[in-house]
Amino acid sequence: MTQADTRKSWIASANGHPDFPLQNLPLGVFSTAGGTPRGGVAIGEHIFDLKVAADAGLFTGEAKHAAAAASGASLNAFFALGAGPRRALREQLQAMLAEGSEHQVALEVMGDSLLPLQIDCQLQLPAQVGDYTDFYVGIHHANNVGRLFRPDNPLLPNYKHVPIGYHGRASTVVASGCEVRRPNGQTLAPGAEAPSFGPSKRLDYELELGIWIGQGNAMGDAIAIGAAEQHVAGYCLLNDWSARDVQAWEYQPLGPFLAKNFATSVSPWVVTAEALAPFRKAQPARPEGDPQPLPYLMDANDQAHGAFDIQLEVLLLTPAMRKHGSAPVRLALSNTQNMYWTVAQMVAHHSVGGCKLQPGDLFGSGTLSGPQPDAFGSLLESTFGGKQPIELPGGEQRTFLQDGDEVIFRAWCEREGYPRIGFGECRGVILPAR
Amino acid sequence: MTQADTRKSWIASANGHPDFPLQNLPLGVFSTAGGTPRGGVAIGEHIFDLKVAADAGLFTGEAKHAAAAASGASLNAFFALGAGPRRALREQLQAMLAEGSEHQVALEVMGDSLLPLQIDCQLQLPAQVGDYTDFYVGIHHANNVGRLFRPDNPLLPNYKHVPIGYHGRASTVVASGCEVRRPNGQTLAPGAEAPSFGPSKRLDYELELGIWIGQGNAMGDAIAIGAAEQHVAGYCLLNDWSARDVQAWEYQPLGPFLAKNFATSVSPWVVTAEALAPFRKAQPARPEGDPQPLPYLMDANDQAHGAFDIQLEVLLLTPAMRKHGSAPVRLALSNTQNMYWTVAQMVAHHSVGGCKLQPGDLFGSGTLSGPQPDAFGSLLESTFGGKQPIELPGGEQRTFLQDGDEVIFRAWCEREGYPRIGFGECRGVILPAR
Repeated sequence: MTQADTRKSWIASANGHPDFPLQNLPLGVFSTAGGTPRGGVAIGEHIFDLKVAADAGLFTGEAKHAAAAASGASLNAFFALGAGPRRALREQLQAMLAEGSEHQVALEVMGDSLLPLQIDCQLQLPAQVGDYTDFYVGIHHANNVGRLFRPDNPLLPNYKHVPIGYHGRASTVVASGCEVRRPNGQTLAPGAEAPSFGPSKRLDYELELGIWIGQGNAMGDAIAIGAAEQHVAGYCLLNDWSARDVQAWEYQPLGPFLAKNFATSVSPWVVTAEALAPFRKAQPARPEGDPQPLPYLMDANDQAHGAFDIQLEVLLLTPAMRKHGSAPVRLALSNTQNMYWTVAQMVAHHSVGGCKLQPGDLFGSGTLSGPQPDAFGSLLESTFGGKQPIELPGGEQRTFLQDGDEVIFRAWCEREGYPRIGFGECRGVILPAR
Repeated sequence: MTQADTRKSWIASANGHPDFPLQNLPLGVFSTAGGTPRGGVAIGEHIFDLKVAADAGLFTGEAKHAAAAASGASLNAFFALGAGPRRALREQLQAMLAEGSEHQVALEVMGDSLLPLQIDCQLQLPAQVGDYTDFYVGIHHANNVGRLFRPDNPLLPNYKHVPIGYHGRASTVVASGCEVRRPNGQTLAPGAEAPSFGPSKRLDYELELGIWIGQGNAMGDAIAIGAAEQHVAGYCLLNDWSARDVQAWEYQPLGPFLAKNFATSVSPWVVTAEALAPFRKAQPARPEGDPQPLPYLMDANDQAHGAFDIQLEVLLLTPAMRKHGSAPVRLALSNTQNMYWTVAQMVAHHSVGGCKLQPGDLFGSGTLSGPQPDAFGSLLESTFGGKQPIELPGGEQRTFLQDGDEVIFRAWCEREGYPRIGFGECRGVILPAR
């Protein structure tokens, strides 16, 4: 998609909406008081109810199948259909909701197909997560964290050859808005000989792009890099909450476990590849001296268009700010172009040994920090390992998160000739430990 | 259960059966030609069809609910019921199948409730795996493997404080008998500067106890150690297939990923805590100088009865042996008493930070090697890192697995005054890489 797209919707709130104009149309699962959870599409300040529209017979052909699959309590069946039906649904939705649509009067009369997003609707996890995998492709984060442990040699020798990832916990992936309880765990205090047990004192967030897997592969088969993006259903924001003190003590030799498995939050809307198409970029050239990826990770089209220009923002709302009615404060502004590996490379790598991916599997990108402190995607980095508190308005400081703190992620894309599109928010408030 | 139990069944093949006498009654999911998968119980050379029996109204009270929940295509709903209904079902099943049962004539007439295990039945994964976690509680394995990397200091400082575990891949957990394809992956050849890509050359097994989770916990809640075993539905054998060359190159800093996620095999029968009750042991005393576990990992009852006396056997059947009609060869005989941490300690630790466990989650114990080479639970250990091949009959040797090799795990319990009970087999043949 190279031509400008300035179409408007007959739904007035969509035009100029910072997240959900006609050009976005992300999918999610919502419920209303007394209703069952079902699929919907965000448009301006409204949710377009796919079940009501599908039941009314508004879709035809592949889009009809797609709308039916997206009408249930999770989008897994819709994800399983792949890119063709998803695109067909998008085209019919855009035609239906565009200014001048022949459907406008019918939809306005129906009324109940359009629900006010902020008032009536509870947003849920869009899919049942089969397996959750967290990658580590944010090279500045890997550098920043590595430097805390190994000042002279922050990146391990495999980093520029392998899209490093590990398996996370699927059962505790939750939708934005769910509260996050501070975990108890074992930690080794500085200088102590034996660990102690109690609430984590170094609770942190990690700013990540989430990737929802669509069509999967059979066990034993690999997904070729050229086909890899066809296996992605869409994108979201992901907060990989982390207990740094638990992590430091437990993670050798098999990786993070309790430090991460108490909660992972995602934004509820699935932003599609189609909506993000105008915001693709060439994968940044590797610095001189960096190795070429192995052939199974190389694809010319992926090099030319594999990156995304998505702005990523972290905000913090403390109990004191909430009390004074203050707005949340920005802690960082980063961008998905800080990924050293593309999404296609992640998918190809994950499946190259025959691991089965399934519709509803979730990937995290790893923390997407930029090179400068104002783009660091975790407090571990922003406070240089907890040594240098960050200053907040009103004289507050933070090294790590305190009870009652709310972390808010936002993301959006901007480009001349297109309306801005956004991901919506990924929020979570910290509850005190039990 | 401290009294001897020598009861017999009217099903002749159960009496003296090495695995499935009246005292075992493990549950599984099977299918027959043209039939849908459903729950059953192994008894001698037969499967007792729980759906047929439940539909015939043979159970009452809690057992009736349990049998209905275990009649479907997975045992997740049965696992979710917890220990009470499981015990009730076991009691009614034992009464029904014991010598002198009033049900004998009725069941013989029904006929189709008892199916020949070896002939008609295909055994499947007993439950849909939500999340799979692999622990590392076999201390001799941790020592043996640690010594390969750190000769002077094989165990890391956290090992005797933390039941180390990591998240594995649920989508590739398969039932015994499923073929395992050799994975392709990145490896760094000795002395090479850059990695190469191709089939793993160091494919290995890991001998583990599998633990099926029953009733779960709410996110944010911890399971107390005193209640932990109530959250276990039963036990199986587990083969944590491992590509050692992939693992060595990829695992820093976030743990094993592609080295393990291509396949994990489990034996299909779920052996219950009730069946294993006569074979409990005191947890071996910690060697002098070892730290006391933190209070959340300490329970007097668990110390007194938390260990199991289960014999664990590894056998290998090579293509040459198969061609000559030879029996598989034993590679190792170990025992679950080689666990440094108990199952209750694993459950308590996993949930202590609030991680949600769900019915059908699966734990692996980690490789359960004994201290001597004839009890090593992986080829990595038996061949001392691939340096010393093992000798097989007929002049064959192995350092790691070759295509066509079949690995067979068996497990059983023996004690005077009780019939032997067994787990059945966990088998897998290696297919060549794609």
